[in-house]
Amino acid sequence: MRTSEMLIPTLREVPAEAEVVSHKLLLRAGFIRKAASGVYTYLPLAQRVLRKIKNIVREEMDKQGGQELLMPIIQPAEMWLESGRWHVYGPELFRLKDRHNRDFCLGPTHEEVITLLMRGEIRSYKQMPQLLYQIQNKFRDERRPRFGLMRGREFIMKDLYSFDRDEAALDVSYQKMYEAYTNVFNRCGLKFRPVEADSGAIGGSTTHEFMVLAESGEAAILYCSQCDYAANVEKATSQPAAGLDPTKEQLALEEVSTPGQKTAEQVAAFFGVATSQIIKTMIYKTDKEFVAALVRGDRDVNEVKLLNTLGALNLELAEDADINRVTGAAAGYVGPVGLQNIRIVADPEVMAMVNAVAGANKTEAHFINVNPNRDFKPELVADIRLVKAGEPCPKCQAELLEARGIEVGQIFKLGTKYSEALGANFLDENGKEKPIVMGCYGIGISRTMAAAIEQNNDENGIIWPAAIAPFQAVVIPVSTKDAGQVQIAEQLYQELNQAGVETIIDDRAERPGVKFKDADLVGYPLRIVVGGKAVEEGVVEVRQRRSAATELIPVTEVKEQVKKLLTTL
Amino acid sequence: MRTSEMLIPTLREVPAEAEVVSHKLLLRAGFIRKAASGVYTYLPLAQRVLRKIKNIVREEMDKQGGQELLMPIIQPAEMWLESGRWHVYGPELFRLKDRHNRDFCLGPTHEEVITLLMRGEIRSYKQMPQLLYQIQNKFRDERRPRFGLMRGREFIMKDLYSFDRDEAALDVSYQKMYEAYTNVFNRCGLKFRPVEADSGAIGGSTTHEFMVLAESGEAAILYCSQCDYAANVEKATSQPAAGLDPTKEQLALEEVSTPGQKTAEQVAAFFGVATSQIIKTMIYKTDKEFVAALVRGDRDVNEVKLLNTLGALNLELAEDADINRVTGAAAGYVGPVGLQNIRIVADPEVMAMVNAVAGANKTEAHFINVNPNRDFKPELVADIRLVKAGEPCPKCQAELLEARGIEVGQIFKLGTKYSEALGANFLDENGKEKPIVMGCYGIGISRTMAAAIEQNNDENGIIWPAAIAPFQAVVIPVSTKDAGQVQIAEQLYQELNQAGVETIIDDRAERPGVKFKDADLVGYPLRIVVGGKAVEEGVVEVRQRRSAATELIPVTEVKEQVKKLLTTL
Repeated sequence: MRTSEMLIPTLREVPAEAEVVSHKLLLRAGFIRKAASGVYTYLPLAQRVLRKIKNIVREEMDKQGGQELLMPIIQPAEMWLESGRWHVYGPELFRLKDRHNRDFCLGPTHEEVITLLMRGEIRSYKQMPQLLYQIQNKFRDERRPRFGLMRGREFIMKDLYSFDRDEAALDVSYQKMYEAYTNVFNRCGLKFRPVEADSGAIGGSTTHEFMVLAESGEAAILYCSQCDYAANVEKATSQPAAGLDPTKEQLALEEVSTPGQKTAEQVAAFFGVATSQIIKTMIYKTDKEFVAALVRGDRDVNEVKLLNTLGALNLELAEDADINRVTGAAAGYVGPVGLQNIRIVADPEVMAMVNAVAGANKTEAHFINVNPNRDFKPELVADIRLVKAGEPCPKCQAELLEARGIEVGQIFKLGTKYSEALGANFLDENGKEKPIVMGCYGIGISRTMAAAIEQNNDENGIIWPAAIAPFQAVVIPVSTKDAGQVQIAEQLYQELNQAGVETIIDDRAERPGVKFKDADLVGYPLRIVVGGKAVEEGVVEVRQRRSAATELIPVTEVKEQVKKLLTTL
Repeated sequence: MRTSEMLIPTLREVPAEAEVVSHKLLLRAGFIRKAASGVYTYLPLAQRVLRKIKNIVREEMDKQGGQELLMPIIQPAEMWLESGRWHVYGPELFRLKDRHNRDFCLGPTHEEVITLLMRGEIRSYKQMPQLLYQIQNKFRDERRPRFGLMRGREFIMKDLYSFDRDEAALDVSYQKMYEAYTNVFNRCGLKFRPVEADSGAIGGSTTHEFMVLAESGEAAILYCSQCDYAANVEKATSQPAAGLDPTKEQLALEEVSTPGQKTAEQVAAFFGVATSQIIKTMIYKTDKEFVAALVRGDRDVNEVKLLNTLGALNLELAEDADINRVTGAAAGYVGPVGLQNIRIVADPEVMAMVNAVAGANKTEAHFINVNPNRDFKPELVADIRLVKAGEPCPKCQAELLEARGIEVGQIFKLGTKYSEALGANFLDENGKEKPIVMGCYGIGISRTMAAAIEQNNDENGIIWPAAIAPFQAVVIPVSTKDAGQVQIAEQLYQELNQAGVETIIDDRAERPGVKFKDADLVGYPLRIVVGGKAVEEGVVEVRQRRSAATELIPVTEVKEQVKKLLTTL
């Protein structure tokens, strides 16, 4: 390819609309243009990157026995009514009517279509496992589309669905996908981490997210400094801190007036104790009830864990008026002792406390010497605390570290949620009818492209890993008026392409500075500059985009050297 | 691939819903399943065929300098309001609203998106030509979806758009696409014909349709038995027939009572003349006016030609009451002589007639000895006749023949229709602003798959051309219990795949008859049967699907022989 014949509309200015670096660079380097809010056109350079990511994904899916198919984008409402999701899925579902006034939606996901397909085709356990996938545009009408390709309304996904006879077989399929995903992101040249994630209160069990590590990532990850434990913050747990000496004498409960002392910090300072000696009591409102959640004063409540523990659909902090009504005290003075008509959920760390401080359910008063089990009995004891860096790993007790990540893939054990709802059954070896056991596995293809940029860039532009770069090398003749330079540049361009190195030549009649800037901005892994020395001494300059390492290489050796270099990028 | 591990749900029954052979076979051979009316899931076999067609298309587009990009499926209404198509496009356009109540449509085509894109990127004549294409799902809400993939509501298209500085440059782009399309359908192994087609009254000029020849085709094609002339019936013309001896004496006009004689055949018989001596006068109603269309009695009016000649938006035959009111006579007795307050359009053949017979605009009467120019003067003389097989070629006068075809591609000179409407201009070498000159070029990818089947099938199933077959060969061990057979079959399966022959092995524990039937139904070009002879004598049976030619080939020579055979299929 020649830059003169390719649509690569680089921009000098940073577009005002772009907030994150991948969005800025995709626009500036001529990879995407906006068609509507959260809806983009992928220009030729982006299409090349997308095709490379898709090919890697296809190869890894196929290697695990995945079969590619293609389901429709428009899905009839009947399917979603049957699964029960038509009325549950909120405004993120794009809905439309056809000319006969029949309801359809634009697929955000394809569980209904594929489960109904397999209901018609699978009769026997002998026909499984089946791993079926597609690569396709998906739709989600985000309330606030932003960050370019990171949160768009139309985006490209690979979604695979597994169909198995039982949980043990699902485990095998799940492990295949875990390996495939690991291979995909390794081959894309990305630094990433699979992390345990929350699977939600309803349906499904095990799930992992694949996170591309980047400071700009939306998700917080906790991972062990020693072992392989890693989880996103919603799911992460830690070794519960031991309480103070559990053999310590339990003193008598005592009420103390604490005017103006509301936060854990204020109360700890007032009593001269550590915040870890305070029982923090948060009142939440779910779709069903009010709940008191107890964590240590130096912790916070993990609302996702709490939601799952309660089996609730949604959860929010109670308003002050409700707190007053339910507990009899103002916010800040609530505690578990004597709390009635409301469920109490306590984190295990709370249960290990001795002679703790807690609100007295009386405005401007706290209890000291509160002892769990003696002074109150929670209905539920469950891990509901938000884990932070520095806490001990739940597996090996080494220190947990924190990182930021961008979720580019997720694998999920669905179990029988959809097969039961949609009646997708099979006969086992005893002729007994059972629901198919399913899994689903997604990779955000367009998101992976953006995440690769978030992880690989500098002030001059993108730094593509060689495996997914739009071109692996750019050849730049310094002067397009110098016939000798042009001839050598053209020869290298041909030679490299013939050798399987995807190479573009910048044959524009532009100043070298402009071409160098564009080469850095677009982010070709290697830049080969053909200047006066090429003609005079038979050498060209080969520069690595990432390290800026530059070598002078004889024209005759460029092909071999470039091939060798690319294996390292 | 192994049939035991692949979803190939063949059916013994012919599905009731299917009318045409491609629809029946795509269902029966396990290529597609219906998700909604006109909306299908492509199963793994179909996805393999689609990918092959797409790859051929990509290679041929790229060879001509095409650049692949990817535009969004959801398009904001603003774009269509700007081009003026939002209110013109009828109920075939799927429309939807996002959560903010903004209007969108699902792209049936992408002129708006790409023209607006290029408006932002192209400033100078130096940036052209640009040939940009995508392969993507398109949407058209057909009133009556039918014929499986032949007329669906969601289908896969390749659409390319060319951007040029002037008509001469557009001619070059058009010619490139003409060649690319010819290569695509040749490489797909299809018998096809590019035909001149009607470009409609508004916008655009030259257009060709690429027709896959098949008896079941919806479109009629006329082509010359000698030269390369070919056109669809809407566009086809012929050498106008010479009139009777033009030096013949023009006799006096005479009115004759003709009770009950209404059709050309009746009138010709009544007067004892040929139907070619009758002037057939048809009254049409357009969006603007009534019109009388004259053709010879042995011809029919081509309504598309008439519409274009009149520059009308629509056209229909006038109702009897209107005919009476406008002409003063009942239908069957209308003629051009004395006809007033209505435009007359005559085919050139009519103008060559001497002493013809025509209606007298009086119920139950005709004129004889009608002579054009003497007795009436049409406002327009234009080719408005429907051409039929047997007429002389307009280029070389040899006989025209008729065939049926399925339109799988169309190339179209758009000119400046969209660039003017959307303000996509550039500066020429003199710094003058001009609208970009555009072309658009489509290939129905999923339709091509169906058309290939319409052209290539027999009572047993599909007969794939090797280039787009889901697999090129199937290896069938006659008995999966015979270890010797299985071992040879597995060895051939491995060898062939390693040699680049895409081969599937039918390793199911089914009777050979079932496997043979499925192999014929799915339509693999070559079937390799490993039976007892393979173990005893070292030979296997290689059968060609199309010709049923069967050869016994030594196991050691199968690889080379199969590769050789495939070049011929």
